[in-house]
Amino acid sequence: MSRFWSKNTKNLTPYVPGEQPKDRKFIKLNTNENPYPPSPRVKERIQNFKLDDLRLYPNIEGAIIKQAVAKHYDIPERQVFAGNGSDEVLALAFKTFFDNTTKVGFPDVTYSFYPVYCALYEIPFVKVPVKENFSIDFTHYGKDLKGIIFANPNAPTGSYVSPDVIEELLKERPDTLFIVDEAYIDFGGESCVPLISMYDNLLVVHTLSKSRALAGLRIGLAMGCKELIEGLVRVKDSFNSYPLDTLAQVAAEAAILDTQYFNDTRQKIIETREWTQRKLRELGVKVQDSMANFLFVSIPGISGPEALLKLREQGILVRNFSMPKISDWLRITIGTKEDMEFLVQTIKKIMAG
Amino acid sequence: MSRFWSKNTKNLTPYVPGEQPKDRKFIKLNTNENPYPPSPRVKERIQNFKLDDLRLYPNIEGAIIKQAVAKHYDIPERQVFAGNGSDEVLALAFKTFFDNTTKVGFPDVTYSFYPVYCALYEIPFVKVPVKENFSIDFTHYGKDLKGIIFANPNAPTGSYVSPDVIEELLKERPDTLFIVDEAYIDFGGESCVPLISMYDNLLVVHTLSKSRALAGLRIGLAMGCKELIEGLVRVKDSFNSYPLDTLAQVAAEAAILDTQYFNDTRQKIIETREWTQRKLRELGVKVQDSMANFLFVSIPGISGPEALLKLREQGILVRNFSMPKISDWLRITIGTKEDMEFLVQTIKKIMAG
Repeated sequence: MSRFWSKNTKNLTPYVPGEQPKDRKFIKLNTNENPYPPSPRVKERIQNFKLDDLRLYPNIEGAIIKQAVAKHYDIPERQVFAGNGSDEVLALAFKTFFDNTTKVGFPDVTYSFYPVYCALYEIPFVKVPVKENFSIDFTHYGKDLKGIIFANPNAPTGSYVSPDVIEELLKERPDTLFIVDEAYIDFGGESCVPLISMYDNLLVVHTLSKSRALAGLRIGLAMGCKELIEGLVRVKDSFNSYPLDTLAQVAAEAAILDTQYFNDTRQKIIETREWTQRKLRELGVKVQDSMANFLFVSIPGISGPEALLKLREQGILVRNFSMPKISDWLRITIGTKEDMEFLVQTIKKIMAG
Repeated sequence: MSRFWSKNTKNLTPYVPGEQPKDRKFIKLNTNENPYPPSPRVKERIQNFKLDDLRLYPNIEGAIIKQAVAKHYDIPERQVFAGNGSDEVLALAFKTFFDNTTKVGFPDVTYSFYPVYCALYEIPFVKVPVKENFSIDFTHYGKDLKGIIFANPNAPTGSYVSPDVIEELLKERPDTLFIVDEAYIDFGGESCVPLISMYDNLLVVHTLSKSRALAGLRIGLAMGCKELIEGLVRVKDSFNSYPLDTLAQVAAEAAILDTQYFNDTRQKIIETREWTQRKLRELGVKVQDSMANFLFVSIPGISGPEALLKLREQGILVRNFSMPKISDWLRITIGTKEDMEFLVQTIKKIMAG
């Protein structure tokens, strides 16, 4: 610790993402990356980019990304915000809309970065327990909340809320801002984006890290009414004028516009997820229904940390969380069919002792 | 404005960077970009990068950048921090070290993003007037300041403080954190980086946007004692785990390690700056001494905004600032020799009326 750290800096407990192994070769099912490469159009676009132009600052508004997103979702460009990964977009949203005078609520089991943002910006928050089956219990969110944030499908459980249910919440609580983190929406869920034109209390956050296979390029999006987007732009322009580099911008455009490739790869992942779920259930493994690119599983008679270690010994990385309520569960990313065949075989061996 | 904006969001006045023209072709001398392309090694590295790997998250620590910087400056890796452009690095530094209980000071004429960061994080600040000749007047910084921040060479004036003077300040004020923003240090100045091993109250901030010609890739650095760097990492990991995408990381490494190209291009820029300064002075234009890749000039009898417009009409973009003290001055980036020959000719014409 340095004597120059501010009080807030001293009190932080940063978010810890899944391991990125450097040495040994693992089947990496621990950070919800896409097992397929990005669209060939992304590669073509980067390979054809005039790299001399990197001497110039990027387009400040991320204009070409916004155009591509507006076209894909059929919404106006002014309802789109682009940032350096959805982590940055979420952080800027917390800073833009909340402060130490406003309380926010989120499920006790959800993306564990939300309480970290609250600590960073000194925003009071309440964690509302999910139900026994891990679904979000919307009846217990206090009327005093300025914001409610959740991932849909939720992480790490995979549980899903339909836009109908969300629309009811938006109507019931017009003075609460809902931030719906749709990082995993493209694996079978239905997006809330069509609701943004009707409700000014909805911000939808997306990422190109999962369904577009661009985790390495850090591209996140937010979509909402133009006043919410303007707020994000104000804060962004007070933090970092150019968060999106030029190669990320052209890659994002190419990825978003290649609908065919997007549909093909996410369909493959959905099919592999369903296959894996069936096979694991046949073994007697508890598997939550999932609309995401991961499964939430519990192996009977083996603790979460123990299962993680045994899988690691066999060359498979998965994720386990220390929170007692879910400590016996593993979050396992859907890889290729071959990856998952090996996973199922390995879990079978582990269960046989 | 949205009713969901926080009070702080409502009160922000974001930083406005220089224009990035989209339509017409200009000689762009308004944002201090490098007139030469990035090192050929950067291009080679990006062209040879296995783009399929973009499906994976980047190295979280920016390890290869830190190694390259450590090698270049002969300092330990743990004394290096890498972020998404020096704007992000500076923003994170303000958040890490200061808060609403601590006052910071900076020159009234300097990088105009500093007061914007203070507004974003509600950090009290004082602007201390520069001297008549635009040099920084260190005698008037109050003893109550937790931090003193300035650009060296300073922007937009080009004035420069030697490391000897900075070392005296570090000794005199051991409880004040000095953040020295060396965005322009590679154009003839001497860096303070060697001082970080001796003083725990010095953070030096660099960018790859200027002397390394990578403005399009957003790479910034901070160097300081390991406790200062640890503080930055804590805050970064509470904001955005992966601010540096994979292509930016490999490009940064290639650029930093190509010392030959770096020395050749900055030498050309220095020579062109000296030539331009001499030619403009011969015309009777007031030109500040500059150790940066820009000149701060005032054309007799023509106001700053008027001069900017006249140059724009002739196809040259420069920068003017509204602050009364410097409103009659222009900041003109050093371009290629041909760019500057055209600039000198154009100013000559404008002065002839």
